[in-house]
Amino acid sequence: MSHASLPCSSPEPTGTPIVDRAATFFQLLQQQICDGLEALDGDAKFRIDNWTRDHAEAEGPILGGHGSTRVMQGGRVFEKAGVAFSYVHGRFTEAYAQQFPGDGLDFVATGVSLVLHPRNPHVPTVHANYRRLSRGSSGWFGGGADLTPHYAYPEDARHFHAVHREACEKHPEIANFAELKKACDAYFWLSHRNEARGVGGIFFDHFMGDTEKTFAFVQDAGRAFLHAYLPIAERRQHTPYTDREREWQLVRRGRYVEFNLVHDRGTIFGLKTGGRIESILMSLPNMVSWVYDHQVEPGSREAELLDIVRNPRDW
Amino acid sequence: MSHASLPCSSPEPTGTPIVDRAATFFQLLQQQICDGLEALDGDAKFRIDNWTRDHAEAEGPILGGHGSTRVMQGGRVFEKAGVAFSYVHGRFTEAYAQQFPGDGLDFVATGVSLVLHPRNPHVPTVHANYRRLSRGSSGWFGGGADLTPHYAYPEDARHFHAVHREACEKHPEIANFAELKKACDAYFWLSHRNEARGVGGIFFDHFMGDTEKTFAFVQDAGRAFLHAYLPIAERRQHTPYTDREREWQLVRRGRYVEFNLVHDRGTIFGLKTGGRIESILMSLPNMVSWVYDHQVEPGSREAELLDIVRNPRDW
Repeated sequence: MSHASLPCSSPEPTGTPIVDRAATFFQLLQQQICDGLEALDGDAKFRIDNWTRDHAEAEGPILGGHGSTRVMQGGRVFEKAGVAFSYVHGRFTEAYAQQFPGDGLDFVATGVSLVLHPRNPHVPTVHANYRRLSRGSSGWFGGGADLTPHYAYPEDARHFHAVHREACEKHPEIANFAELKKACDAYFWLSHRNEARGVGGIFFDHFMGDTEKTFAFVQDAGRAFLHAYLPIAERRQHTPYTDREREWQLVRRGRYVEFNLVHDRGTIFGLKTGGRIESILMSLPNMVSWVYDHQVEPGSREAELLDIVRNPRDW
Repeated sequence: MSHASLPCSSPEPTGTPIVDRAATFFQLLQQQICDGLEALDGDAKFRIDNWTRDHAEAEGPILGGHGSTRVMQGGRVFEKAGVAFSYVHGRFTEAYAQQFPGDGLDFVATGVSLVLHPRNPHVPTVHANYRRLSRGSSGWFGGGADLTPHYAYPEDARHFHAVHREACEKHPEIANFAELKKACDAYFWLSHRNEARGVGGIFFDHFMGDTEKTFAFVQDAGRAFLHAYLPIAERRQHTPYTDREREWQLVRRGRYVEFNLVHDRGTIFGLKTGGRIESILMSLPNMVSWVYDHQVEPGSREAELLDIVRNPRDW
């Protein structure tokens, strides 16, 4: 599979506002990622739901926007895979606006977001999101990508981090890989479980420095995604697995749901601003299990994973 | 099955603080409910986890306490049933304390809480909780019970409400059934879905009036639970069901998880105060499904249920 043809420049004329250039990039990235995932899966296709929202039907802070929500369900490799693009504008409530930089209540938000839930417990779940927000006269980028394996494969974690390190190192003025890895571990932390959601990745928010340089970094980080993830999925997709390993995957997916519904700022942003509910919650797995007081055998592969998520490490 | 031997008085000597009398009642109620559910199930038994927490191991606002978490998994009727008693004390943070009546930061909370997830989609999920809280020199009762069917059986909803209406009507100075039903619909509302979690029940909070009269109402409401629920479970447990009905049940359970993790004050109270995580999240079903943009056939039994949860009614 070739990963060579990822978008490398935005086609807008000089003078196009950064938010529109970012939106164009996010749409191209969505298309490329969906193409790459369909090629890997070889079976299921993404269903494409394009949507618009105008002022007349607006409820809550979002006043208008458009997007494309793409979900693949029941594939060979992916039980459920969602890749969404959106561009919305609106007015924050006073209380909610306080957590953002900038001034006033008007906001614009555009981004691409994905969560992939593979069928095989040995293929890791993964999430990535890149976005441009503005509030009043201030604007910033945010995003990242993080890997959530159900079984520990250190070489997978090292590969995923190495690709993202490389993307960061091309932009030393903007991104310090070690800091972004630390921020990722801090953000994807289930405080009520005292464990990380996964093995890390990169995370950043409120990147308000030089716009061109920051946008260049965001583009390289976004383009890194398929390079970081596909080789892992390719080499784990045929690993045989047992019923016990499948059960463990469903239990770990429960932690994923807990994070997304209790802690995740993106999900809460969507729910608070009255976003399209099916797009916001496309991140939730199609099959999940909560087992009371689930325990793992000491020394087992499951215990190995728990040790890793309880003690985040550099890869 | 006899429901006659429910606890009718608290055994403490005169002068026992109300919180301790309430705790004793909640423990007796827990035992009676577990006995009734085991008798119905006839197969699985509740596993009993008694726990204590002392100051040395305290994390977060909870400084100490004890409880008994009882969970039945893999039963004939119940896939997962949790009935928990707890008694904790601690200190709120300034910010979190603001949502409660009373003064200062010290709090005491005791209560019994249950969530039952039956195997058969025609047997409704149900939740109940009765509790006594105090903050500083103020104390109050709260609680309620609500029914979450996956398929509409109006006679079940009518029975559940009739039993609770009767409990309220014995205490006209304390509880107005119509108001408590309305409060239930308002509380168990998934604002991000624009639908109720279920068909209603009763809900109340911050009942700070005459302590003896309020406690008497809470006891009658708690004792009403088995009368309200068991006859429904008994008559639906053998209803045949299809794979499609099972899938619908798992999708509806997804809504249940969304409510508990995004909206429920009790769950958030537990997570914010650093409560015992397995006890707080015992309410989550053992098997859940999120299907992107799930649609029901017009005129189907699934559509009938959706119409009911989108338009709460009096039964």
